[in-house]
Amino acid sequence: MIIVLKPGHEDDDLHRIVRRLEDLGFRAHISKGEHRTIVGAIGDERILREVPLESMPGVESVLPILKPYKLVSREFKPDDTIIRVNGQEIGGHKIQVFAGPCAVESREVLEEIAEALLPSGVHFLRGGAFKPRTSPYAFQGWGEKGLKFLDAVRERTGMLVVTELMDPRDTVLVCRYADIIQIGTRNMQNFRLLTEVGNIEKPVILKRGMSATIKEFLMSAEYILAQGNERVILCERGIRTFETETRNTLDISAVPLLKLLTHLPVIVDPSHAVGRADLVPAVAKAAVAAGADGLLIEVHVRPEEAFSDGPQSMRPQAFARMIEECRRVAEAVGRTL
Amino acid sequence: MIIVLKPGHEDDDLHRIVRRLEDLGFRAHISKGEHRTIVGAIGDERILREVPLESMPGVESVLPILKPYKLVSREFKPDDTIIRVNGQEIGGHKIQVFAGPCAVESREVLEEIAEALLPSGVHFLRGGAFKPRTSPYAFQGWGEKGLKFLDAVRERTGMLVVTELMDPRDTVLVCRYADIIQIGTRNMQNFRLLTEVGNIEKPVILKRGMSATIKEFLMSAEYILAQGNERVILCERGIRTFETETRNTLDISAVPLLKLLTHLPVIVDPSHAVGRADLVPAVAKAAVAAGADGLLIEVHVRPEEAFSDGPQSMRPQAFARMIEECRRVAEAVGRTL
Amino acid sequence: MIIVLKPGHEDDDLHRIVRRLEDLGFRAHISKGEHRTIVGAIGDERILREVPLESMPGVESVLPILKPYKLVSREFKPDDTIIRVNGQEIGGHKIQVFAGPCAVESREVLEEIAEALLPSGVHFLRGGAFKPRTSPYAFQGWGEKGLKFLDAVRERTGMLVVTELMDPRDTVLVCRYADIIQIGTRNMQNFRLLTEVGNIEKPVILKRGMSATIKEFLMSAEYILAQGNERVILCERGIRTFETETRNTLDISAVPLLKLLTHLPVIVDPSHAVGRADLVPAVAKAAVAAGADGLLIEVHVRPEEAFSDGPQSMRPQAFARMIEECRRVAEAVGRTL
Amino acid sequence: MIIVLKPGHEDDDLHRIVRRLEDLGFRAHISKGEHRTIVGAIGDERILREVPLESMPGVESVLPILKPYKLVSREFKPDDTIIRVNGQEIGGHKIQVFAGPCAVESREVLEEIAEALLPSGVHFLRGGAFKPRTSPYAFQGWGEKGLKFLDAVRERTGMLVVTELMDPRDTVLVCRYADIIQIGTRNMQNFRLLTEVGNIEKPVILKRGMSATIKEFLMSAEYILAQGNERVILCERGIRTFETETRNTLDISAVPLLKLLTHLPVIVDPSHAVGRADLVPAVAKAAVAAGADGLLIEVHVRPEEAFSDGPQSMRPQAFARMIEECRRVAEAVGRTL
Repeated sequence: MIIVLKPGHEDDDLHRIVRRLEDLGFRAHISKGEHRTIVGAIGDERILREVPLESMPGVESVLPILKPYKLVSREFKPDDTIIRVNGQEIGGHKIQVFAGPCAVESREVLEEIAEALLPSGVHFLRGGAFKPRTSPYAFQGWGEKGLKFLDAVRERTGMLVVTELMDPRDTVLVCRYADIIQIGTRNMQNFRLLTEVGNIEKPVILKRGMSATIKEFLMSAEYILAQGNERVILCERGIRTFETETRNTLDISAVPLLKLLTHLPVIVDPSHAVGRADLVPAVAKAAVAAGADGLLIEVHVRPEEAFSDGPQSMRPQAFARMIEECRRVAEAVGRTL
Repeated sequence: MIIVLKPGHEDDDLHRIVRRLEDLGFRAHISKGEHRTIVGAIGDERILREVPLESMPGVESVLPILKPYKLVSREFKPDDTIIRVNGQEIGGHKIQVFAGPCAVESREVLEEIAEALLPSGVHFLRGGAFKPRTSPYAFQGWGEKGLKFLDAVRERTGMLVVTELMDPRDTVLVCRYADIIQIGTRNMQNFRLLTEVGNIEKPVILKRGMSATIKEFLMSAEYILAQGNERVILCERGIRTFETETRNTLDISAVPLLKLLTHLPVIVDPSHAVGRADLVPAVAKAAVAAGADGLLIEVHVRPEEAFSDGPQSMRPQAFARMIEECRRVAEAVGRTL
Repeated sequence: MIIVLKPGHEDDDLHRIVRRLEDLGFRAHISKGEHRTIVGAIGDERILREVPLESMPGVESVLPILKPYKLVSREFKPDDTIIRVNGQEIGGHKIQVFAGPCAVESREVLEEIAEALLPSGVHFLRGGAFKPRTSPYAFQGWGEKGLKFLDAVRERTGMLVVTELMDPRDTVLVCRYADIIQIGTRNMQNFRLLTEVGNIEKPVILKRGMSATIKEFLMSAEYILAQGNERVILCERGIRTFETETRNTLDISAVPLLKLLTHLPVIVDPSHAVGRADLVPAVAKAAVAAGADGLLIEVHVRPEEAFSDGPQSMRPQAFARMIEECRRVAEAVGRTL
Repeated sequence: MIIVLKPGHEDDDLHRIVRRLEDLGFRAHISKGEHRTIVGAIGDERILREVPLESMPGVESVLPILKPYKLVSREFKPDDTIIRVNGQEIGGHKIQVFAGPCAVESREVLEEIAEALLPSGVHFLRGGAFKPRTSPYAFQGWGEKGLKFLDAVRERTGMLVVTELMDPRDTVLVCRYADIIQIGTRNMQNFRLLTEVGNIEKPVILKRGMSATIKEFLMSAEYILAQGNERVILCERGIRTFETETRNTLDISAVPLLKLLTHLPVIVDPSHAVGRADLVPAVAKAAVAAGADGLLIEVHVRPEEAFSDGPQSMRPQAFARMIEECRRVAEAVGRTL
């Protein structure tokens, strides 16, 4: 941590800062420059982050040197984390596809969709039984009934189930049916929910908050790892910007950046990023080319009848074509899909 | 709802759209222009919002005509909602001040702060017992112990207590101690929590999500009203932008805009908006001038020792001076404070 | 400047950095911490900003200590700059109002507007003869003819003329008619134009770019001062954010922040910030309360016939009422208007 | 254009709107719904965009139906525009690479760089002789001397020259040396400069403004086409968002979206988007996968000595490796590079 003093600060200010640092167990390294005096605090910066040095008299600014996260960082664990779940690997050589409807609507429709996905080699079926909806008047999901539909389709197809957890009170229930738990974008900083899934034994897909920085995203993952659950999959799903032609703006550079900063797998959700099915294939191919470990895609047999997110849901035929194209791109970058 | 058809659409596309609208109980009003055919759907637009007409063949775009919220709108209830709580009014002629530390740290410090606030005529003491923190390693609040400190200080000073609820499992506990419940910015779209506080009998301060549009903000308030709790206070607290000199960017125009669109009281939190104590007074005065019904201000007797948000916490003396200045501005715009 | 080295860097990397700094005339101050080695470069940081130290082997990051601007900073000139133009002062005790139509449309309409402004004590008439329009098919301004209309109205009313310069080739022409030159938001980083107005003897209103940080805004002002023109007025006019209910988002905290960082006057343009006339009064009052030295307001006698920006133009009666309200707020904060 | 009336509007308001539309040569189509009356204006919407109908009494909002641009739209010209320049094609089957230093520094360094690019099959050499720099104290480019260096290297290598025009007064000079003119991000709405390059006979690379919407970007291209120059190449180069780990956020979905909306070629500049060389390859591959017609890449033989943009400049070896990788991705999506 670097503490920059104001020009014309008092000697006392400097002494007080040094004493405070020493009291906290740090060594203070003073350096007087032409325009500013700076103090380097030598010790565990993570402790110092919680101390409001900015409020001490004479302090102009405080500059951190280290990243605020630890367990999720590559510096802490240089090797890629590969997450194994029922014989499938996430974060390995193979790029995984997680596909399905936004919401679980009925057993029949879910089966139709799942069967349409199988020929493309999709192992993971996604679908929400609990739906976070902007409007209180919109369909909120079937709850446990929806989870049972997912279970039935898993039985029949052998696909693994990815579904969202919105409320810590539903943890036991959702874990009973899900193979992978999803934490949605609006809950990325629902810290109680993060703590909750830090204590379960299922892998967690953590979606980036729509205005979360990369640093905040990793800090939210750190919450889960800090509780002991190391099977976290990061999902870039578009951030909020001024552009209105797309639902969000996919931050494609987040993929290589996250791969540099963390050992965790990184997947991309082009459907929520763009919000319209016609742009999904180009963005999905881009995600694969950029190094994503997986794709999360909304697919529906009849988007015009979907209970939610119809406009961004792909029809099975377009989906199958896109997967073929993604597979070629995957091979071009030395992966399989 | 207006449905715009693609140029060169099929006749069948048009028929299918009209039939679908009619099946849903709408009248379809067709208008053929020079470049586009458009269909006006006459009926309850809120139903149509849930139907993915964009996915029907031949549709170029869908334009809503009405706002998506109802109970919170001025159109539904033209008169200002005034919230009464233990003899105080929020949303009336008097501008209310909610002040206190970010986190409840100890009974002694809380008392010191509360006593420093009293001479300025502050009736509402804010302080967090449950703290949403970006880092899992940061102080997370004292929980029930913190609530008891608040209770004790209320006993002693007669101030009313505002404190945050983060987890639906704590609702009963927090309601036992709080006069007003706060829903934080990171939980503005924690829909389960919104539903939860829609069913209690305490007023709720709902903070705007850091990347929430005005529309989404009002939809979150609608969640609470839809459950039956009409005592919602909206709090503008700065939105996330590209600017980094301040913690967030206070959206000052949200104040008059919200007052136009909704009957609910609107307060402003300058402390979280700017993130540095030296800018708080100017922004607080601006909020009063713009028509805010209240101010939420972080105050600490020793910001340099605060457990959280030290840099944005005001010292009591500066706070008292600011309140005097705000009072003069309040009078200039025909209010009291 | 602080140079942070990567963990596990080579000794050679450190030596090379130190040598480079010394070659550039800096002293290098090495500090080895628990997790990182950092090098403090002691000397004129502005020189070092142009050196890509980040690209040297072993460097993790480079942290500047000083602000990149000099002439515009309060550190360089602690006293407020007061700009005098034909007997009026900008940046002094009196808050100035600059009002008029977006575009100069005809001599008659301009006269009508000017006369409607006079009773409110407005000294500065704004109006564009050269208009930056998003569409090539929109009205682009009358050019010199428009300047002559402004001149005629100045003659008749004694008001001072503020008008925009868009093209360095028009400098002489525009300076012939204008009392104050305006540089529009889209030209805030048109560095050639900035250099141009740095060499004239007229005051310049520099509008903040719609996605410019405060730092970039001040750097653009620095361009003008660096050429010798010290009469720059900064204008906050709203930044681009995700919110769509208003045209832009007024950054109200920019007012006190700029007043801290720079000695230059700071004015606010609520009209462009919100883009709708009904919200202008609340935001104008907020600007005055926050410490603005002036207001830039679009006024038109018949907004529904305006050639541009009709929806955000106020009618004279509403304008007069707003000025009265602003005057009371000005007095409440110890200013006049 | 759809005009939505306020609930409870006067009959007179409606008549006045209808009369106004008819006076302007439009047919008015009235539709009374349950909650709102709407008026469809049938005729050339582009005329109506300039009329401030929002300011008429009784109007709640105005919704455009058509895109505001014409010449650049696919609706106007369905076939891809392929731009031919000295035997090379941009926008055809082959993805083109435009590479070189940020600024032209010396003839020697430029030659070194150009020769390092040739083995990768690069046909276009980019380099700035006029540099838009945030700081007035930074290197501003060598001007004509720099153009002559570019000319000399073209002579020697046969590469085509891409260089930036910043000031309409330099048009003749820059056109003398450039094969393709670049308009930088900060000048995307420098409408005078756009008009200027609309009148030359060189292709123009138009970079997206850092906070420009897709609509505004296309409107700026429309300015150039409206003057008669149809050889415009659109360049996505990252937009400004809240994220600070990268210089900007590349809007990858802009590539397929622009290809849908316009017939013009679309290229991508990963270097400015991310601002750090280590992330450029992943983003470049993503751009190719998403359908970009070209890549603009900053390359320098010694980034640590570059006069500007060192941290984002690639070394030749890394560049050559990246081009190989991009070539494989290009083939996977059915293109060449």
